[in-house]
Amino acid sequence: MNFLARQKKLREQLASAGLDALLVSHLPNIRYLCGFTGSAGFLLVADAGSVFFTDVRYDTQARDEVKGAKVIIARKAVLSALGEWVDARRKKSKGWTIGIEAEHLTVAERKRLADLLASGVRLRNAPALVERARMVKEDAELGLIRAAVQLGATLFDRALEVLRPGVKESEVAAEMEYAARRAGAEEMSFPTIVASGARSALPHGRATEQAIAPGGFVVCDFGVILAGYCSDQTRTVWVGAASKEARDTYERVREAQQAAIAAVRPGISVAEVDAAARKVLCKAGLGRYFTHSTGHGVGLEIHEAPRVAAGHKEELKPGMVITIEPGVYFPGKWGVRIEDMVAVRDDGCEVLTPTSKDFLAV
Amino acid sequence: MNFLARQKKLREQLASAGLDALLVSHLPNIRYLCGFTGSAGFLLVADAGSVFFTDVRYDTQARDEVKGAKVIIARKAVLSALGEWVDARRKKSKGWTIGIEAEHLTVAERKRLADLLASGVRLRNAPALVERARMVKEDAELGLIRAAVQLGATLFDRALEVLRPGVKESEVAAEMEYAARRAGAEEMSFPTIVASGARSALPHGRATEQAIAPGGFVVCDFGVILAGYCSDQTRTVWVGAASKEARDTYERVREAQQAAIAAVRPGISVAEVDAAARKVLCKAGLGRYFTHSTGHGVGLEIHEAPRVAAGHKEELKPGMVITIEPGVYFPGKWGVRIEDMVAVRDDGCEVLTPTSKDFLAV
Repeated sequence: MNFLARQKKLREQLASAGLDALLVSHLPNIRYLCGFTGSAGFLLVADAGSVFFTDVRYDTQARDEVKGAKVIIARKAVLSALGEWVDARRKKSKGWTIGIEAEHLTVAERKRLADLLASGVRLRNAPALVERARMVKEDAELGLIRAAVQLGATLFDRALEVLRPGVKESEVAAEMEYAARRAGAEEMSFPTIVASGARSALPHGRATEQAIAPGGFVVCDFGVILAGYCSDQTRTVWVGAASKEARDTYERVREAQQAAIAAVRPGISVAEVDAAARKVLCKAGLGRYFTHSTGHGVGLEIHEAPRVAAGHKEELKPGMVITIEPGVYFPGKWGVRIEDMVAVRDDGCEVLTPTSKDFLAV
Repeated sequence: MNFLARQKKLREQLASAGLDALLVSHLPNIRYLCGFTGSAGFLLVADAGSVFFTDVRYDTQARDEVKGAKVIIARKAVLSALGEWVDARRKKSKGWTIGIEAEHLTVAERKRLADLLASGVRLRNAPALVERARMVKEDAELGLIRAAVQLGATLFDRALEVLRPGVKESEVAAEMEYAARRAGAEEMSFPTIVASGARSALPHGRATEQAIAPGGFVVCDFGVILAGYCSDQTRTVWVGAASKEARDTYERVREAQQAAIAAVRPGISVAEVDAAARKVLCKAGLGRYFTHSTGHGVGLEIHEAPRVAAGHKEELKPGMVITIEPGVYFPGKWGVRIEDMVAVRDDGCEVLTPTSKDFLAV
């Protein structure tokens, strides 16, 4: 990854945002800008250069990983080291406005930082510069995302080998997660959802000890992290002999998902993609059961910009990677969701997820 | 769990903290107070009662889980629903001071909330009331923690079955995590550390594709979540024939760990416990290689209050559960860490972790 180019681009945006420096506190943003993969640190990007602050636990790791930034290991609190660093450059930093990531800095951290800084230095909420840059994936990132999606898709094959009546949801999840690790995944990108029976109506129904019973849907929503990049996929299968109603519901969701995918192309807004899926379900009288938005960006984070939802204006651009995941949920009865990851291309989109979406009964 | 009693205790503390209500934004605190296990929501605890706000994804789940609070499902942003709720009670809430959890509310969330509230309502950073309550575990919690620790300990037995030269760190982690799931764990309490060779000198050396080589230590640091409660344990084994230096280093860490455990009793400060471990290592000339603190509280979170570290004044009380985990790290060479969980008892402490700490070569 070209961390220097990413930092250079960010530096060029600082002036027009009225900032002398940006304090990057969101770990995925830090990783994107300088390569650090640990769990604690702050990156200060200023015109003169970048400085990365972390604690002693990450001494060796930070020196190994961080590119394009001086590494400072805090002997006490990391924010104190940052305050001291700015203070030691009092002449240079006098009158500075340092941007903060308001969505990723706590009220307490902001207060500690403000208390540490000399009175000539101001803090100001910065626009989401790094998140915006991260929305459009570089070719190297697309390659890593493709690899993560391919690995992630194999977990569903494994799920189908074990998913049958009487097996616990958690056993299915165990086999999927074991397969992920064996295939080299660093970890799951979120807690695996295996939601059977009435639990399939919970959009976030994490696998439990509940045994899978015949006569219901099982929603499997899962993903891996590989080389830092996330995959995200959902498939829903029926257990036992399927009723016409079950098949019809599934097919409507599938049509909605296809309609949204067909809408994805550069220049269209995320709201229009959402509307494409919603229109199909509304027409089928299922609109009110589609209770969430159609999708979200995926990359270093499982949920990142843009949101693919009504009321959002973001226009799709080549290189963006989003999920398309409409679902319908009948509380106490069942739920169906189908989710692929797609990459926006010059001529439309590329569906990254290779798994069949045909109705499946096990 | 007696959620009503926990909320009652919190309410009694609000007045002396100068607060009319507390906005609980930290999810483990929310779970502690009302039982909600999902990933998004805010709990407002006021004298007149409690209200829990979440989004449509958690409609069914919140109604099932939440005890002692009215549930409001936000149709748009959760904070907006909260703002509207307060505003609709303008007469009652006029002049209110609402406490916020400054360590667990972002700068952006605070701003959105402040913008939503009528001018008569103030926000003030609250003391860590819920974290302080959570430090001392109830008997029912101790039972759940014991169960998590027992399950977690079985993973090390599994590790020893597969840990040998040529096996990848990630394969050992895969087997441990699979065993955890099969035994009913909800998930790992943190990314599994299996750090071999020179990587054992990284205090946070997550399992990689590196093959384990003879002639080095392997640090295994791992834990599970069971019924919401975390376990945390570290064992370090040698691979191959051990030198006297390796054995000696291990024994010093073991002595330090024992010394700290021996110090744990009600009334002693966390700094004194830390000093007990540090004294042994300093005496052996290893003090400067013990780069982190001695331990931390464990419960609904893998890291919670109190920190067991120099400079911290917290006094131990019966019912507190902490880790004791001194370690020494020689960058580029090797590292050793030994970690147990202990519960503070009236007469000293109970070591919860059942695993042997004898020097072990595989």
